[in-house]
Amino acid sequence: MPGIRDRVAVAGVGATRFTEHWEKDQEDLLCEAVDEACRDAGIDKSEIQAIWVGVYYPFTGLAGTAAADPLRLYGIPATRVENYCTSGMDAFRNACFAVAAGVYDIVLACGVEKITDQGTRGLPNVREGAHPFLPAASAPALFAMAATRCMEVFGFTKEDFARVAVKNHANGAKHPKAHFRREITMEDAIGAPMISDPLGRLDCCAVSDGAAAVIVTRPEIAKRLNHKDDYVVAKANAIAVTTAAPMYKPSFDYLGFPATQIAARMAYEEAGITDPARQISFAEVHDCFTITELLNYEDLGFCSKGGGARFIAEGHPAPDGDLPVNPSGGLKSFGHPIGATGCRMIAEVTRQLQGRAEGVQVRDPELGLAHNLGGPGAVCSVTILGRA
Amino acid sequence: MPGIRDRVAVAGVGATRFTEHWEKDQEDLLCEAVDEACRDAGIDKSEIQAIWVGVYYPFTGLAGTAAADPLRLYGIPATRVENYCTSGMDAFRNACFAVAAGVYDIVLACGVEKITDQGTRGLPNVREGAHPFLPAASAPALFAMAATRCMEVFGFTKEDFARVAVKNHANGAKHPKAHFRREITMEDAIGAPMISDPLGRLDCCAVSDGAAAVIVTRPEIAKRLNHKDDYVVAKANAIAVTTAAPMYKPSFDYLGFPATQIAARMAYEEAGITDPARQISFAEVHDCFTITELLNYEDLGFCSKGGGARFIAEGHPAPDGDLPVNPSGGLKSFGHPIGATGCRMIAEVTRQLQGRAEGVQVRDPELGLAHNLGGPGAVCSVTILGRA
Repeated sequence: MPGIRDRVAVAGVGATRFTEHWEKDQEDLLCEAVDEACRDAGIDKSEIQAIWVGVYYPFTGLAGTAAADPLRLYGIPATRVENYCTSGMDAFRNACFAVAAGVYDIVLACGVEKITDQGTRGLPNVREGAHPFLPAASAPALFAMAATRCMEVFGFTKEDFARVAVKNHANGAKHPKAHFRREITMEDAIGAPMISDPLGRLDCCAVSDGAAAVIVTRPEIAKRLNHKDDYVVAKANAIAVTTAAPMYKPSFDYLGFPATQIAARMAYEEAGITDPARQISFAEVHDCFTITELLNYEDLGFCSKGGGARFIAEGHPAPDGDLPVNPSGGLKSFGHPIGATGCRMIAEVTRQLQGRAEGVQVRDPELGLAHNLGGPGAVCSVTILGRA
Repeated sequence: MPGIRDRVAVAGVGATRFTEHWEKDQEDLLCEAVDEACRDAGIDKSEIQAIWVGVYYPFTGLAGTAAADPLRLYGIPATRVENYCTSGMDAFRNACFAVAAGVYDIVLACGVEKITDQGTRGLPNVREGAHPFLPAASAPALFAMAATRCMEVFGFTKEDFARVAVKNHANGAKHPKAHFRREITMEDAIGAPMISDPLGRLDCCAVSDGAAAVIVTRPEIAKRLNHKDDYVVAKANAIAVTTAAPMYKPSFDYLGFPATQIAARMAYEEAGITDPARQISFAEVHDCFTITELLNYEDLGFCSKGGGARFIAEGHPAPDGDLPVNPSGGLKSFGHPIGATGCRMIAEVTRQLQGRAEGVQVRDPELGLAHNLGGPGAVCSVTILGRA
């Protein structure tokens, strides 16, 4: 089947700074991101014909009105997409389908989350506001089991995890919109207070607020807008769902995420990619925990199974490596306002491909990949963007 | 723009009985509805390539796994759509876009809600699990204000409201899957215990559990499946969002719902309909309260503004009238398991158009309309289906 390859263009992108926004609410944040995306595309907000908004937490907002109301875009379609941590990237996917179907010319995909003033409900655990069937378990505890298992089977060490944290903090220190803009040392990462053994505080991404927005259109329309000479097109967009709670299944081996493996395979097929490690120029991946980024390298085919620790030790995912991963600083530096993250990644990849990733630009990228994993481990989105 | 007119087909439909399903959970219900839809389409469940599931309440389920898990359809895309009471119909809309874009051949749109065993959280109020900015107010209280205002301005009476309840109960009494299968009298309706003056118990739809499912494909594929000789195509699908809380705005006049008016205008334009009262054969509309159905007649252009009471008094929406409305019995007889209702309506309209609406068949329908209003009043979906 044709997928959306080369049929959908990114006309403009925007994002707030990701941080603890005590002085702004979710509506302020969404407006800020969308205003930036409209300016970037060179369109007026009133030209938006339909909206898809990714929101995970009910306390951030419900229904399409979560976007239509703050934006004062009434009388047009607006849909809320909720798909765990991939909510924002799945909002983008559905926006792409509507444009590829020819139903709309210019639409908005966006995502937002306001977590910091929600008390413990905002903490990354799955007990409240989450799946009704899951027993209480925090995300750190679940990913700590993956880390422990990889230490046992692959020989991963605390140092391997720390390398991810050090790399991503160094990248985020240069990004104007990151939550944490400071470098850390290996000693900082390894010696940080324990959260869930073996994952310390610097192995975990933070709780942050933020919003991001993407203006989606067809290539022939993008040619008439601001980025007519450097607009970006979708090469693939895939999403795969496994069970809601793979980590609770007796058969789960904790050595990788089938959702990522399947979504990557689908995306590579759609984009015509046979050797991702060579053909993908750079990637923004879901580093909710340092162990997750190591497993993402493997699941996305950047290296062999069990080779994640060696992949980073050899410098491949460094900003000047042959496959920079999370040049933005990733979730480690941005935090993870759930609904916003996927659209932030699309925005980040777009700016990189256009050579305007201020402070963190990678060299001459051709194809950029964005990856979200949610659930935890239940659902994965992979989007591949390229120069037109 | 082209919309989806004649580009998307309904290959099969299914629905559970809508009732208090104490002995089944949301996963049982969804499986039952999807199994029926697959049998109806003549496909195996494994032929489904992607899923959109409408779920409103977080306690029913989260993310695409709300459908993928019970159906054991792993490794394919599954997306949760939440758009207040239009969640199910918006799931269908997004499924249609993906098919119209040519990305998938056969997909599933479905919706489910399990409310009866959730205590007061399932009651139709907007205090818990709903929009964070709304003050506590029940749906009956809000729609009672519309009823009061229409009594004052249009001269509507309790008898006018009762006519809707009597008609829909009489229809539902003949429908094998309705929650309430009994006729009521005008005296029953008018004398029922008061819920929120002037709306009594029989002016309100009930809290029910249920699931519904629609197999969506392209016409050329439908021609090879079970309903090759009588498959149904989408003529239009429109959704319009106004503010999340129109009923709280000082400017809201309580005499109709702009979301319905706008969505209907968009749908009629897409379907090429200029005179809905003559061209629409029958409609399944959102009668969450009797007053809502009267206002729907007006907002959908079936009669003039303020003419809703006269429209039913003259018998137009009766099963043997010239524009039967809610021949199934509507939300009055089925209750309103939020995520399920939109897909149930699509299923209902499909069966009517195919001449197999057991017990409640209308005469020779050409075009059927389905209508959801949610929010309350914030968002409206209108779908028009026709014979291929």
